Amino acid sequence: MTDQPRVEIYTKEDCPYCEKAKDLFERKGVAYEEHGVSGDDELFSEMVDRTNGRKTAPEVFVDDELLGGWDETSALNQTGELDDMLGIPHETPEMMYPDGGATAAEDDEILEHRTLVIAGTGIAGLTAAIYAGRSNNEPLVIEGDEPGGQLTLTTDVANYPGFPDGIGGPELVNNMKEQARKFGAELKNGIIESVDDSSRPFRIELTNGDVYTADAVIAASGASARTLGIPGEDELMGYGLSTCATCDGAFFRGEDMLVVGGGDAAMEEATFLTKFADTVYIAHRREEFRAEDYWVDRVYEKVEAGEIEIMKNTELIEIHGSQEGGIDHVTLVENDAGHPTDRLDDPETEEFDFDVGAVFFAIGHTPNTGYLEDTGVEMDDEGYLKTKGGDGGGQTETNVPGIFGAGDVVDFHYQQAVTAAGMGSKAALDADEYLEDGERANSSAEEADPAAADD
Amino acid sequence: MTDQPRVEIYTKEDCPYCEKAKDLFERKGVAYEEHGVSGDDELFSEMVDRTNGRKTAPEVFVDDELLGGWDETSALNQTGELDDMLGIPHETPEMMYPDGGATAAEDDEILEHRTLVIAGTGIAGLTAAIYAGRSNNEPLVIEGDEPGGQLTLTTDVANYPGFPDGIGGPELVNNMKEQARKFGAELKNGIIESVDDSSRPFRIELTNGDVYTADAVIAASGASARTLGIPGEDELMGYGLSTCATCDGAFFRGEDMLVVGGGDAAMEEATFLTKFADTVYIAHRREEFRAEDYWVDRVYEKVEAGEIEIMKNTELIEIHGSQEGGIDHVTLVENDAGHPTDRLDDPETEEFDFDVGAVFFAIGHTPNTGYLEDTGVEMDDEGYLKTKGGDGGGQTETNVPGIFGAGDVVDFHYQQAVTAAGMGSKAALDADEYLEDGERANSSAEEADPAAADD
Repeated sequence: MTDQPRVEIYTKEDCPYCEKAKDLFERKGVAYEEHGVSGDDELFSEMVDRTNGRKTAPEVFVDDELLGGWDETSALNQTGELDDMLGIPHETPEMMYPDGGATAAEDDEILEHRTLVIAGTGIAGLTAAIYAGRSNNEPLVIEGDEPGGQLTLTTDVANYPGFPDGIGGPELVNNMKEQARKFGAELKNGIIESVDDSSRPFRIELTNGDVYTADAVIAASGASARTLGIPGEDELMGYGLSTCATCDGAFFRGEDMLVVGGGDAAMEEATFLTKFADTVYIAHRREEFRAEDYWVDRVYEKVEAGEIEIMKNTELIEIHGSQEGGIDHVTLVENDAGHPTDRLDDPETEEFDFDVGAVFFAIGHTPNTGYLEDTGVEMDDEGYLKTKGGDGGGQTETNVPGIFGAGDVVDFHYQQAVTAAGMGSKAALDADEYLEDGERANSSAEEADPAAADD
Repeated sequence: MTDQPRVEIYTKEDCPYCEKAKDLFERKGVAYEEHGVSGDDELFSEMVDRTNGRKTAPEVFVDDELLGGWDETSALNQTGELDDMLGIPHETPEMMYPDGGATAAEDDEILEHRTLVIAGTGIAGLTAAIYAGRSNNEPLVIEGDEPGGQLTLTTDVANYPGFPDGIGGPELVNNMKEQARKFGAELKNGIIESVDDSSRPFRIELTNGDVYTADAVIAASGASARTLGIPGEDELMGYGLSTCATCDGAFFRGEDMLVVGGGDAAMEEATFLTKFADTVYIAHRREEFRAEDYWVDRVYEKVEAGEIEIMKNTELIEIHGSQEGGIDHVTLVENDAGHPTDRLDDPETEEFDFDVGAVFFAIGHTPNTGYLEDTGVEMDDEGYLKTKGGDGGGQTETNVPGIFGAGDVVDFHYQQAVTAAGMGSKAALDADEYLEDGERANSSAEEADPAAADD
């Protein structure tokens, strides 16, 4: 028995990634000290100080060494480095490889064969798991790098049918996890690196080297927040720039904030941020918001109250600041459809500088389908999976028999919790039909006269 | 003020149609006496006696006159006859037609114009209503002849994601109704008789003569239990033959019962009926059950326990009995794929007679799309609506712009609560996009130079 190192986690209220970080250590049975910085200026200063200016939660330290936020901590966990730092056995069983984990990635070292592997534990993956469990396909569900999916970032889900008073995103996800487990699904931490469809069963390799085989795969790995790829972005992400208003908004109390985007998420985040901001500005590159009327109305109420100001046909092109001092100002440009305003520094370029203390991106998502790139699965230019669709059965089939798609890896349009759930259910039913056809084919082959096999 | 007539309702436990009947009178503010026959042999005998042998609940009497069950009572309500019998004003407002209700059906007598009318208050219609409400389209939702849809007949819904301990069908439906109303949906009793799509707005006529116009229509009117059309069926429906095991199973305690069908519903009903039956027999015309493994497993557990017996490749061809004495026996036939058994009375025909006291049909559904027959909406041979499908937006569009389809009127394959909900959400979002495009087109037309109109 070695002494465990000291683990500290800085957290704040309404911070889903903080919950994830705490869950991770709890699952490992590793004790940690929690420093809640909400409403505690001294602790908050201490955190900013110890992280060299980062204003985002959580921040995780092991023996005084800064690991970083959830993304960094999760990445270290995937590679096994976190377990090494903590001096504990790796989460995924070396015990199955008495010769050592190093051989795990070799072709012959299959950890386990499963009937069905589901990628992702968002709404689509969990609904698929519920249905697949009930179909006796004992699904293995690989959590991915954002366990619970995007809904865990939503404080209050008002439009998921069945909850008239709304339900918290994390609570809805946890309900579905419990329901999936109840019907026999196994949920496992891990990230799928690649799927090999060159032979059957499919060969599924995780980033930690674990390898599974499976007769069928449901891709329900969702989508991740998009960024703009503009100057200042990489440097300032976590230092005033964020993709999660509910996570980081409270750190910039009293400052002017900029939300970039025009969909539901942008409207929701802007409305939420009025709790903390002096003024919230929304920069949207088009004339019309894509968001549903409900959210547009909420935003215009705040506009009337003087809490939100809208800049349409306006694009963000640079973020200025430093990791020490945070964001100083941004550069925006009015595009062709824009109406020149007195904001323009230089009417020739239609660019103008603008002082804000924080920037939140809410500009959509890119599908998490990289691990399928070496398969024959058809995708569109943005990486969304193409599925059969249509009226009857098999709507979630990709062009590769045995691989199915559900949720935001397929759906670039509706992107609702309940539409993802509907697709998850369909994918499990489609997969079950595929698997039963396979069983029937196999059992007919076995029953057939062996002498006739060459005919 | 006139004296109200005496209303009596015979009810039993776990009887969704009994709840509907009580709800109807409660909504009208009409007092009724409830006679609960569960566990009360004397009351049960009284009911059978007063209904000339009917063994189904509810049974409704007004001033000692038998109206019948829910179907008959609901039909009388649609025509206004029930209100006349009760001596109360019709539910739908004559006050809007000071000249009398008779003119309501005439072309110019439009009760109200609505942005969006939704047909049906099952899961698909209610989810559409939640989303349409949030999009400020103030939907009018017409309940149809089975308010709440098929899920109101399900005691326990285990696979709707978000409820790990399951939820009662009626409770889930009521939650969604509350949620829809909260966001501005108006639910109205009534049955749509026809939709006229020959001009815009659409003209929607109800069976009670009310007429609405609407800019868009979502057809979410579900599907109804199918029957076989065999001898004895019409005569014995309600006298031992039923399409709802949870409604009527308890009336045949201790008898042998026959369930016809091979899908989830058949397995679920057979399992449920073992609580009451001596033996439950399942007759299925094929070799394989279509039901999910979960339900097939439950049934085979009961087979092992000696409570269920399965007859595959076997079809029901006649039901024998009388309204006075109930079902006496049935005639079954083993079809081509069947294996002759010692049951056969006549091996030549492979027919055999079989004694059972009750028969439950669970043989699928036909879509409720008759009211769209005079429109240009494309349907398949069975009456299911064809929708656009595909990957992007507009998946629920029919070929008639402004008419959308969701739930069991479209889906002949998956037919799950959560898939219906997903489609309802999509239909409301598609309809909103259609309506906003229309608004934009109108406002551009208004803004355009009138002089240029003929160009």
